[in-house]
Amino acid sequence: MTTSPNYLEERVKELTLLLELNKILISTLDIDKLLNFIMKMANRVVKAEASSLMLLDQSQQELYFNIALGDKGAQLKEIRVKVGEGIAGYVAAHGESLIVNDVTNDPRFTARFDTATHFTTKNILCVPLKTKNHIVGVMEAINNQDKGYFDNEHQYLFEVFASQAAIAIENAQLFKNLKEAYRGAINALTEAINAKDHYTAGHVDRVGEYAMAIGQEMGLAEEVLEDINQASMLHDVGKIGIPESVLNKPGKLTDEEFLIMKTHPVVSAQIVKPIGLSPHIVNAIRHHHERLDGKGYPDGLKGEELFLEARILCVADSYDAMITDRPYRKGLGQEIAIAELRKNSGTQFDPAVVEAFIKVLTKANNMHI
Amino acid sequence: MTTSPNYLEERVKELTLLLELNKILISTLDIDKLLNFIMKMANRVVKAEASSLMLLDQSQQELYFNIALGDKGAQLKEIRVKVGEGIAGYVAAHGESLIVNDVTNDPRFTARFDTATHFTTKNILCVPLKTKNHIVGVMEAINNQDKGYFDNEHQYLFEVFASQAAIAIENAQLFKNLKEAYRGAINALTEAINAKDHYTAGHVDRVGEYAMAIGQEMGLAEEVLEDINQASMLHDVGKIGIPESVLNKPGKLTDEEFLIMKTHPVVSAQIVKPIGLSPHIVNAIRHHHERLDGKGYPDGLKGEELFLEARILCVADSYDAMITDRPYRKGLGQEIAIAELRKNSGTQFDPAVVEAFIKVLTKANNMHI
Repeated sequence: MTTSPNYLEERVKELTLLLELNKILISTLDIDKLLNFIMKMANRVVKAEASSLMLLDQSQQELYFNIALGDKGAQLKEIRVKVGEGIAGYVAAHGESLIVNDVTNDPRFTARFDTATHFTTKNILCVPLKTKNHIVGVMEAINNQDKGYFDNEHQYLFEVFASQAAIAIENAQLFKNLKEAYRGAINALTEAINAKDHYTAGHVDRVGEYAMAIGQEMGLAEEVLEDINQASMLHDVGKIGIPESVLNKPGKLTDEEFLIMKTHPVVSAQIVKPIGLSPHIVNAIRHHHERLDGKGYPDGLKGEELFLEARILCVADSYDAMITDRPYRKGLGQEIAIAELRKNSGTQFDPAVVEAFIKVLTKANNMHI
Repeated sequence: MTTSPNYLEERVKELTLLLELNKILISTLDIDKLLNFIMKMANRVVKAEASSLMLLDQSQQELYFNIALGDKGAQLKEIRVKVGEGIAGYVAAHGESLIVNDVTNDPRFTARFDTATHFTTKNILCVPLKTKNHIVGVMEAINNQDKGYFDNEHQYLFEVFASQAAIAIENAQLFKNLKEAYRGAINALTEAINAKDHYTAGHVDRVGEYAMAIGQEMGLAEEVLEDINQASMLHDVGKIGIPESVLNKPGKLTDEEFLIMKTHPVVSAQIVKPIGLSPHIVNAIRHHHERLDGKGYPDGLKGEELFLEARILCVADSYDAMITDRPYRKGLGQEIAIAELRKNSGTQFDPAVVEAFIKVLTKANNMHI
């Protein structure tokens, strides 16, 4: 009788485990961590010796191992399975689970995974990773260690786990795609500067490298470094609004031209407004030409009124402007530029930032020897 | 004895229900739909007469009703509760569940919700909506209809449901924020054109309106309209790369200047490349100056080689260019512009698109009468 207390107790335990696992599944939006977790838990859910998970490449209609645990992982990553081929391919094609309790008697079974991993498959429970609209892959449990075979009860539990895993995978993939599109759109803004002015584009890349190196040297947290990175990429985007006659003038600017040039941090901040960036990023963009003594522009802020990100960006930006050749003048040598940073440390620049940057540059020089 | 078959059977049913609900919870990344679903299901999980859900406003440390069902919803939306205040505020402050089986005897109970909704609260089960790192809100079940009071069993089930709901809410919020940041970054690209050239910025907005109206008139699917919208916003971003002397020349362009001008669709496509937009959007951007007869630029594609999105964008773009005043010439009147579209229908323009657009313009004119 299936409703005996023992059976029910076992079922309560299993369902409670599934609920616990789900909580972790849906807390993980990082696709690699998520797949890792699913792989590790799959064994536990149906007491299997091993498990595998293949994702579906929709455009190629092929299954592939995004992740494979253990030292045979690399070999497995080479293998791709056509939808319809073998046991996994059959399940992906039909969208239904399959138990094969004697693989030697099933023509769909192929030994090539066993060969690649030096493993002996006896029985397989294979379920589709299915969301409302798509099949995102298949999951296999291999060699049941409890009964020596897989039954309907295992299939039920594995299907419940797989259905939650599939949705979590789809969410994580959506999240990853959206994140990449966002980063891409930010890169497009840099690309837009490049279309107008190659010098600014190259400058922006270098300032980003310097600013990140300073932040790392100062031991800043990962989120702060990410803010510095975004601020660096976008700090000069306002130069799109500066007339070419001013931006590329092969000589010293007149007072009036300099006033126009000085609008660029404000225009940069204006352009990035719709993105809704953190105040730290916007502050760094708007204030990368301020000075510690309040004599900078556009707002004449001083000292602690300036966010650390702005003070870092300012040093990185000034240094690159000094050492770079322009059509109308040769760049200063590194030594002279460093001397300039030192000279203006405490008035124009934040001394702690200057010091960190000089350490970075010294290390880099030593590596070049 | 708590492990009687009846109890266990009941527990299996409850856990199975929770697993089912979770699947729906995590499938819903739209925050409004998600909160609606949670509210509707909360009653069912603990057999309550009513339920409520308040989200936490982190910056204000206040709880608020993002969603309130029924005809009293509007009044509830006005109410905000300080963390620490009342039963909900207590639970948010302590991060722990609370059962109040006789609200008349609990000083934390406030009747103002009952007053607003003409409801009589007898007993309350209130649980925090808690993820690994944050409290995102609280959820209340009101008036148990099974036993007439809430017990530990109800609390356990409601907590399990709440813990999954909280993660789903946090994911949906993250997703919403990221989506808004992405849209913002696309808007920033339009804002960047605006910084260089106000005419192009206004033009881009109008072309977007025309193109969307054509798409709607043609009965295109929501996703296609969204592609048309994005393509419209970005089609002229490449003008950032056109020298101002050419872009704003107050007169006819020389052959050489026209060659430079004709690079802008290619530059637009180049700039948006990092975003990884759909091929339909990129095609429409690159090919909005092609002609149906293959005599356009940059690639001389013809007929069906051009995606529908490109053919729509082309008509919208040409029409706006015709009717708009420029410093060196007055815009054509609407009637003449429509006659031009008709004249070039089948050679330059897709006849189906021209026809749809004329319908749109005629409707708009009638509305102005």
